[in-house]
Amino acid sequence: MSPSSHDDARLARVALGWLVEPGNQALWTRVAEHGPARVLEGLLAGDHLDRLRRAAGARLGADDPRQLAEAALERTRRLGARVVIPEDDEWPHQLDQLIGICDLHDKADPVDRDAAPPLCLWARGPLRLDEALDRSVAVVGARAASEYGAQLAQRIGYGLAERDWAVVSGGAYGVDARAHRGALAAGGVTVVVLACGVDRAYPASHTNLFERVAEDGLLVSEWPPGAEPFRHRFLIRNRVIAAASRGTVVVEASARSGSLQTLRRAGQLNRCRMVVPGPVTSAMSVGCHEQLRSPEPTTLVTGVAHILEAVGKMGIDLAPVPRGPEHPRDRLAPTEQRLLEALLIRKPLSSDEVATRAGVPAQDAWRLLPSLAYRGFAQRRAHGFIIGDGRDR
Amino acid sequence: MSPSSHDDARLARVALGWLVEPGNQALWTRVAEHGPARVLEGLLAGDHLDRLRRAAGARLGADDPRQLAEAALERTRRLGARVVIPEDDEWPHQLDQLIGICDLHDKADPVDRDAAPPLCLWARGPLRLDEALDRSVAVVGARAASEYGAQLAQRIGYGLAERDWAVVSGGAYGVDARAHRGALAAGGVTVVVLACGVDRAYPASHTNLFERVAEDGLLVSEWPPGAEPFRHRFLIRNRVIAAASRGTVVVEASARSGSLQTLRRAGQLNRCRMVVPGPVTSAMSVGCHEQLRSPEPTTLVTGVAHILEAVGKMGIDLAPVPRGPEHPRDRLAPTEQRLLEALLIRKPLSSDEVATRAGVPAQDAWRLLPSLAYRGFAQRRAHGFIIGDGRDR
Repeated sequence: MSPSSHDDARLARVALGWLVEPGNQALWTRVAEHGPARVLEGLLAGDHLDRLRRAAGARLGADDPRQLAEAALERTRRLGARVVIPEDDEWPHQLDQLIGICDLHDKADPVDRDAAPPLCLWARGPLRLDEALDRSVAVVGARAASEYGAQLAQRIGYGLAERDWAVVSGGAYGVDARAHRGALAAGGVTVVVLACGVDRAYPASHTNLFERVAEDGLLVSEWPPGAEPFRHRFLIRNRVIAAASRGTVVVEASARSGSLQTLRRAGQLNRCRMVVPGPVTSAMSVGCHEQLRSPEPTTLVTGVAHILEAVGKMGIDLAPVPRGPEHPRDRLAPTEQRLLEALLIRKPLSSDEVATRAGVPAQDAWRLLPSLAYRGFAQRRAHGFIIGDGRDR
Repeated sequence: MSPSSHDDARLARVALGWLVEPGNQALWTRVAEHGPARVLEGLLAGDHLDRLRRAAGARLGADDPRQLAEAALERTRRLGARVVIPEDDEWPHQLDQLIGICDLHDKADPVDRDAAPPLCLWARGPLRLDEALDRSVAVVGARAASEYGAQLAQRIGYGLAERDWAVVSGGAYGVDARAHRGALAAGGVTVVVLACGVDRAYPASHTNLFERVAEDGLLVSEWPPGAEPFRHRFLIRNRVIAAASRGTVVVEASARSGSLQTLRRAGQLNRCRMVVPGPVTSAMSVGCHEQLRSPEPTTLVTGVAHILEAVGKMGIDLAPVPRGPEHPRDRLAPTEQRLLEALLIRKPLSSDEVATRAGVPAQDAWRLLPSLAYRGFAQRRAHGFIIGDGRDR
């Protein structure tokens, strides 16, 4: 593709993105078939007397979308941001898999209609989109996170970044912000996927956080600079978080949390669905526990090791199975353990007495007690055996 | 069985239980085949030169097991306790299902060898064993429970008892004790399954708890009065807790907690395996979370409602299968039922019309409709068939 047709494509995609809210399946499919410039041309010429035209609705004919797109691109440049399109090398093509879930329409969930891949993405920050998102995990959860959830999110963000995984989230209060901050604290990569323009700080108190991300990571959005964080946009945005990363971890979620929608998307895309449990007494973990009770395959994770085991390649990032402290005595054969149980601290017992107390064959006691004494588990006395002095126990 | 042979059986079972630690598969099988009295006789006469004799080991020949059994029974009577055997009406026969898991021998777990049903049970308390355990749930967990786990155990014990479910546990510190106490606080039934004699308070600080249980619930053990709580006995005991109840709930468990073994047994017996999650920062929930991550089907529960949902379903398998009233029509062949479904109340349909509506071959309709009319399910009219008058339906 020549530079000029490349620029045409970018302009057309931005214009189309202004005409129709992101995620529209009909638009994405037509653009994939005919290219963005021709689809825009046709739409403006009134070629498409169909649901695509209906989707564009009132915006069609209000202003000239090409002029608006030019202005948006100019504003983007002034911001030090850029518009990335699928025709660019840095486009993260895992997002294109979203087209596969458009046909999973769930009538109960109208948002499912808006699951098509983005037409373009605004990006602000020094990293290439494809590289930043290649090894990434989404860490999302409750805005009203408890201290438990907030600390865990930060710890997980830190741990992932420390092991060279990028942390993707939505920049919201609570879990999202703490996950981003954890990654930054570890000197790692974090990507904020916004539901408004990359020049807007929403929430406003995250102005400093987003500035830091713009310096070291990436601010990403499907909407042009200046776009407002309308409520429906968060749900549309969530599919990008799920599709961009190898798996989604929900740290805390109340019963109807939006983060569970992100998790659902991850599952639809065959990405790992992960949930951190919490106290059953906490309202902030109700959604997590319900998810773990649901028939949808979801992996319980308690930390970074479990997350990497799930998203990492098989066999490489296997989490160690936790064990309690092991005592030398735990390695004894069951009969030996039973013999030891039957010994007393002070009063020596004969082999036969020990066998009777332990309920094991006498010959086993004769054979094993001297060996246990030799290994320090028991002590030999003139008239039998007592419990060992603990040297090796 | 006559009273005297009944008493012989009880004496023999107690004697055999003294000779061989509970759970021995060979002994249980032989007793099931030949009756306890004959097996004891043979063993004392030296008939069994095999692993059964080996299992009895040093205890064989040490004292007269019959005299010891007499003494144990006398001591039991003086305690106000009783020995319950499978020949008694109050035997909880769900325990006999344990024989089914003896062949699941897991070489890595030597305890699997001791999974046979109990030969007899000591019981202390006013309730019948079978009735107390019929609608019961095991609530087990860490001895070193956190305040979170202890409170949950108590709340769950209370909630189950409040809804007429008995709470079974092991009487240990922490989760076990709090579950028992919760049930008592609700005025409900609780059953302590001990790993020592029913006259011993282990741990000693639970003396008052056990006295209360002996008054309102049941203290149960496979070991005679005076028997010591040897370590291996807890694992042997756990299978009784799992088998007696419809499901096992683990409230808190460290990485190598014995309560996970009870849970495993419950699964082997097709009882519900349930686990309460907790903060991932708590060592006392590590075992719970590992269980929820394992491939073994385990249900996450956060409270009594979830537990009852799980064991309520299981109850259908254990109790006689509840059915609605049966209609004669339920016994018809599927094709006949489809033909009946296709008939109308007033308008007669020809055989061919019925066949078409029912989606069955025409010749089946020709053959079966007259027979259905003969049996009163359908009625013949001049121009076909209508629904029967209900005489026999």
